[in-house]
Amino acid sequence: MTKWPLPDPMRRALEEARAAAEAGEVPIGAVVVKGDEVIAAAHNSPRTNHDPTAHAEIAVIRAAARVLGQERLEDCDLWVTLEPCAMCAGAISHARIARLYYAASDPKGGAVEHGAKVFEHKQCLHAPEVYTGMGEGEAANMLRGFFQERR
Amino acid sequence: MTKWPLPDPMRRALEEARAAAEAGEVPIGAVVVKGDEVIAAAHNSPRTNHDPTAHAEIAVIRAAARVLGQERLEDCDLWVTLEPCAMCAGAISHARIARLYYAASDPKGGAVEHGAKVFEHKQCLHAPEVYTGMGEGEAANMLRGFFQERR
Repeated sequence: MTKWPLPDPMRRALEEARAAAEAGEVPIGAVVVKGDEVIAAAHNSPRTNHDPTAHAEIAVIRAAARVLGQERLEDCDLWVTLEPCAMCAGAISHARIARLYYAASDPKGGAVEHGAKVFEHKQCLHAPEVYTGMGEGEAANMLRGFFQERR
Repeated sequence: MTKWPLPDPMRRALEEARAAAEAGEVPIGAVVVKGDEVIAAAHNSPRTNHDPTAHAEIAVIRAAARVLGQERLEDCDLWVTLEPCAMCAGAISHARIARLYYAASDPKGGAVEHGAKVFEHKQCLHAPEVYTGMGEGEAANMLRGFFQERR
């Protein structure tokens, strides 16, 4: 049996999620890619950094914008292991990310296909193309395992 | 004629908005208050900082959490001169801000009473009490003036 290979950026985002778990943070990872190049990679770190905004997507967008020295990431794609929340979907819109790829959907906190559906309102000035599902089993298992250990 | 006085935190947020305009940034300011004490004050700075997430609310939440050394700001209130966008409303929820006060409403980009209405979905795990309108004329005039100058 051969498992269908994941795109490299999602493999890298899953590695970041694993690093988050090892640091005692909810295992969610993200990367920003421009062309074939990974511009930045980050994971969830609100506890470690005493920063409620330090989700993987916010951290990776801030890092990529710093690396590129520009406010907008128009030619960049963002890969993340979980459906973004309202905060992160809003940040993805402000950053003008071209394409968003996320692994697992998140009925409890997601705001792309659930709840606030941030990209679907006229107040959202830029919506990325959205692709989902690649790596969703691995991403979801990592989250489940993390929360089961802590119960 | 005596103008009804604004609450101190909103006056301070409006000062921050003025400082943003002087720095060439869209004039939006915010403060986080705990009891009677201003914990942090900040203004919009995405251009200066090459950071698409650097809205006044995100900046002031990050600063307050750093000052208090904690991820959550449960006993804190946030005052801001404009209705928060989806990103900032999400951050306010994650930070567990107790009360949100905003001056002007924002039909074009707001996500509290407009569009995504972030606090009104079950995916939003904490919604602050919301108070609006104090200082709305001054806040809106500052924004109008800023964009008229740049047209």
